[in-house]
Amino acid sequence: MSLFTSIKKPTLLLDEQKARANIHRMRLKVNQQGVHFRPHFKTHQSAVIGEWFREEGVDCITVSSIDMAFYFARHGWQDITIAFPVNLRQIDEISMLASTIKLGLLVESRETIQFLSKNLAATSTNTWIKIDTGAHRTGLPWQQADAITQLAREIQSTPALHLCGLLTHAGNTYSATSPDEVCRRYGESVDCLLDVRQKLAATGLASLEISVGDTPGSSLCDFGEVDEVRPGNFVFYDSKQLQVGSCLWSDIAVAAACPVVAKHADRQQIVIYGGAIHLSSELWMIDNQPVYGLVALPDGKSWSEPLTGAAVVSLSQEHGLVKLAEKDFNRIQVGDLIFVLPAHSCLTVQAMREYLTLDGKVIGTLNSKS
Amino acid sequence: MSLFTSIKKPTLLLDEQKARANIHRMRLKVNQQGVHFRPHFKTHQSAVIGEWFREEGVDCITVSSIDMAFYFARHGWQDITIAFPVNLRQIDEISMLASTIKLGLLVESRETIQFLSKNLAATSTNTWIKIDTGAHRTGLPWQQADAITQLAREIQSTPALHLCGLLTHAGNTYSATSPDEVCRRYGESVDCLLDVRQKLAATGLASLEISVGDTPGSSLCDFGEVDEVRPGNFVFYDSKQLQVGSCLWSDIAVAAACPVVAKHADRQQIVIYGGAIHLSSELWMIDNQPVYGLVALPDGKSWSEPLTGAAVVSLSQEHGLVKLAEKDFNRIQVGDLIFVLPAHSCLTVQAMREYLTLDGKVIGTLNSKS
Repeated sequence: MSLFTSIKKPTLLLDEQKARANIHRMRLKVNQQGVHFRPHFKTHQSAVIGEWFREEGVDCITVSSIDMAFYFARHGWQDITIAFPVNLRQIDEISMLASTIKLGLLVESRETIQFLSKNLAATSTNTWIKIDTGAHRTGLPWQQADAITQLAREIQSTPALHLCGLLTHAGNTYSATSPDEVCRRYGESVDCLLDVRQKLAATGLASLEISVGDTPGSSLCDFGEVDEVRPGNFVFYDSKQLQVGSCLWSDIAVAAACPVVAKHADRQQIVIYGGAIHLSSELWMIDNQPVYGLVALPDGKSWSEPLTGAAVVSLSQEHGLVKLAEKDFNRIQVGDLIFVLPAHSCLTVQAMREYLTLDGKVIGTLNSKS
Repeated sequence: MSLFTSIKKPTLLLDEQKARANIHRMRLKVNQQGVHFRPHFKTHQSAVIGEWFREEGVDCITVSSIDMAFYFARHGWQDITIAFPVNLRQIDEISMLASTIKLGLLVESRETIQFLSKNLAATSTNTWIKIDTGAHRTGLPWQQADAITQLAREIQSTPALHLCGLLTHAGNTYSATSPDEVCRRYGESVDCLLDVRQKLAATGLASLEISVGDTPGSSLCDFGEVDEVRPGNFVFYDSKQLQVGSCLWSDIAVAAACPVVAKHADRQQIVIYGGAIHLSSELWMIDNQPVYGLVALPDGKSWSEPLTGAAVVSLSQEHGLVKLAEKDFNRIQVGDLIFVLPAHSCLTVQAMREYLTLDGKVIGTLNSKS
């Protein structure tokens, strides 16, 4: 029985070759440009896939939660930055990690530094100041050089902490509509950090590093004068990244195989077993219509190029609605599999919790049931 | 240590009293109106919470997947309708269920009936024709009485199947903006089914039942001339249901407790540890702005009324951004907990995978890790 014949329900397929090629390509780029590579593991969340990075010489990683840090520490990773503001309520877990691995923390307020000063049971824990260069999620606005300087001095005077530098996530590159716009936004973000670093240096705060990390910027642009890059999504890419121009369709390394359960000829739509609990509800807009993923068909032992004029246009808990061009609609039958290239692979991985590789291996994640 | 003090990371709180009251209220309503109650268990996905329904006399349930049917069958449920089009690829599992419990299936095409006729290893399996009364997700359009009649006759002539009746999900009530609009849409949906039933009866297909199932309609409207109702979300309700008018805020039985990790005074926003992987990315729009949930504060051993002018306005993988009124912004500190009343409780439960009750019990679901 072929791999695809054996699939009975929504299954996250992983093309190992493509993922390894994506890792290799990014690794070459960071080497060539002489920056430090600290890939974000929140995308794949898998110890097995982590080893593919290790084989490329990676030994420093980024994660987005303390649970994820513990998981990868258990799997032999000794240098982990948690790229999320310190959660004071997990201080015991942070202390435990800080005493066993080389841990990196993000801070952005005096209150948090004072709390860590009193409660962190460790010394010289690597600490980054989170800077907002325009994404407006979190971090100190880059324009507030005085506040950043004050924070840097507080960290320096806290024995529990060691000041590493300035860190940002230029999340606004994800909403860019062209590679040029990605690189403009990426460049502006780096310029903001360089500006802050210069101002801090002028007050005597020298040798601060700069860490950046979005996949569109890391895929499309020269890194510029940064010290460290932390992209994550590039390991798999996805339909949104394809739209932005960060990758080719043939770089997308994951696809959700979904059974077709109904057809509606009047609206050229098929219903798939594959809903928000499998793909996540992430979307982007095309002509004011939501798109939850692009759609491909089986092609030998892999999947085809995305079908022209086809998209997942609606999701409920378990149902997905796929709009197709007429010729594709006619050749798909109830019981067939279609392949959804997800809008946002990180969230689809989180929802699906394990992978099936194209050569039939099941690969678990932090969230696997067994 | 109080329950709230012990919470370290995003945690789905469940007010058991409220959930039980919601079950009781719906149970009274269906009893008073003389309809059959087959609640949808995809919202809570929990054997423990299933028992709260059993204590109210419920013994027939609805689920949305074969895995969920197996889970509840293992926990003693003997009469289960899978309210999702038959997935041909799981025919072995369907045969297994059909031979051990009273199973209900949904069909909407000749191809599926012919497949079941050949491959379903069971006789007289309860079968419903899925009708689309306007939600345009799936099902045969109600206007196609001839096609529905033909399908009904095919089912009748298939020994593996037993024709029960016509089933719909009037999902368009969820986008209604007032209780009146909910009841108008609910009523129209029922009228469509009555019309189809009458036409089928005229061809000699008598005694077909009608099964409907949305929470807004079931909460707000007289059921009318239906035989069975299958609401699910009402066990917990959520912020979207509050917007539609299906419930009071005090009926909402789940809230995600999320630690505050940063504050941004310039935009009166706080950052919470609580993102799309905890709350799901479900949203609704208010004044063209996305809202991912309403926000409450601790109030004794429960949570407060939703804060006026406050909402979760942005989500990424682990971060949530909460906009607050000035007075609330000023009284919340980094390290505090806030409570998000989710946009769509079904998907938040799926994401969180277990509950913590207000009296400190951990309750698992189908998807719990352990």
